[in-house]
Amino acid sequence: MIKKTFGEMLTVNALPYQFLLPVEHTAVIMIDMQRDFILPGGFGETLGNDVSQLTSAVKVAHSLLYWCRRKGIRVIHTKEAHAPDLSDCPPAKRNRGKPKLRIGDAGSMGRILIDGEEGSDFVPELSPLPGELVIVKPGKGAFYATKLDQFLKDNKITHLLFGGVTTEVCVQTTMREANDRGYECMLVEDATASYFPAFKEATLAMIRAQGGIVGWTAPLALIMSAKSLI
Amino acid sequence: MIKKTFGEMLTVNALPYQFLLPVEHTAVIMIDMQRDFILPGGFGETLGNDVSQLTSAVKVAHSLLYWCRRKGIRVIHTKEAHAPDLSDCPPAKRNRGKPKLRIGDAGSMGRILIDGEEGSDFVPELSPLPGELVIVKPGKGAFYATKLDQFLKDNKITHLLFGGVTTEVCVQTTMREANDRGYECMLVEDATASYFPAFKEATLAMIRAQGGIVGWTAPLALIMSAKSLI
Repeated sequence: MIKKTFGEMLTVNALPYQFLLPVEHTAVIMIDMQRDFILPGGFGETLGNDVSQLTSAVKVAHSLLYWCRRKGIRVIHTKEAHAPDLSDCPPAKRNRGKPKLRIGDAGSMGRILIDGEEGSDFVPELSPLPGELVIVKPGKGAFYATKLDQFLKDNKITHLLFGGVTTEVCVQTTMREANDRGYECMLVEDATASYFPAFKEATLAMIRAQGGIVGWTAPLALIMSAKSLI
Repeated sequence: MIKKTFGEMLTVNALPYQFLLPVEHTAVIMIDMQRDFILPGGFGETLGNDVSQLTSAVKVAHSLLYWCRRKGIRVIHTKEAHAPDLSDCPPAKRNRGKPKLRIGDAGSMGRILIDGEEGSDFVPELSPLPGELVIVKPGKGAFYATKLDQFLKDNKITHLLFGGVTTEVCVQTTMREANDRGYECMLVEDATASYFPAFKEATLAMIRAQGGIVGWTAPLALIMSAKSLI
């Protein structure tokens, strides 16, 4: 059941200052909550990362999506995944570093970061509902080589909430793209996580620096308890 | 006098591992070395920033450009600037924060961040030479709403060196855009600076994390002393 009040404006006590959230023109973008990044035994862990750092953000992200759906705020999911023939994967990306497994190799949950494979799918508790947009992206940023910007403009979306993983890579990159394109962006602090907590904290600080040069941040509790101007 | 050896490949002892630099297919992108960001009394300082943090990077950037020009490495300059009527400036950008001066207002060196005004021009020691590409960009990233990607592809550029300011804002944003587009990127550590040294260090660490997820970093001395494979 959607409780949508047209024209509703929420006032969130965010950092670095109050964020005005026009419910009707807001979408939430949940970044890359995919099994291969989050679950033990997945690609992220084979790269040597501590996936347990991401657990609590998955729970908060679930609450964020629940609240957004109740409010009538549009939900968008992104996943980093490539075509089976890797035609959309730059060689520079596949060849970078010295990992045990590369994009397209066979991992514990199918071929790594290939669209349609089990590992590239969302963790079950954050599965998209019917009608929610899923953006499959070849890069870290969700605006490059996708239809995201056009979709947002077509739907008169001007304000974006962000959650997902990892904070300093795909979330930050996408938020910076969105900021350049004129969207007012807020990162939900506890609905995002990094394998490296210090990088998450640095990213939050960079976003709110210089009067919110990239945007705002707030924990979910402050968003859910925000007062309505009308 | 340009000493260009076609097919020359330099091996730079960068972090997180050796960077192979094909001279013929490399460009350097010098980000936003503009008076209003760097000089005392400019826009950056009116925002409360400590512009003295940027001084040493200007000197190193000058040496980097000198070395690149001698090598025949193509030099590209970017500047963040808007049309006099602000038609390319999103309201979200102009209205963000509570600064004393906003984009388009009259500052000490002309209208703030307006193309053609003195403050938006490059610091004298980093002025472009005739024939060098200047990208005027409305965002923090140099790929959004510009012809940069097409220019690089037209000129068979696959590898990019980066310098400029500020590290975590325009430099990082542009480097992430370039990485998504398949360019092999190296940030020249001492040719870039931030008003906030901790943000610069965090950005360098984020770039090289996870096997160089965004690219490589090295100080200029290591690039200038790099050995040639042929």
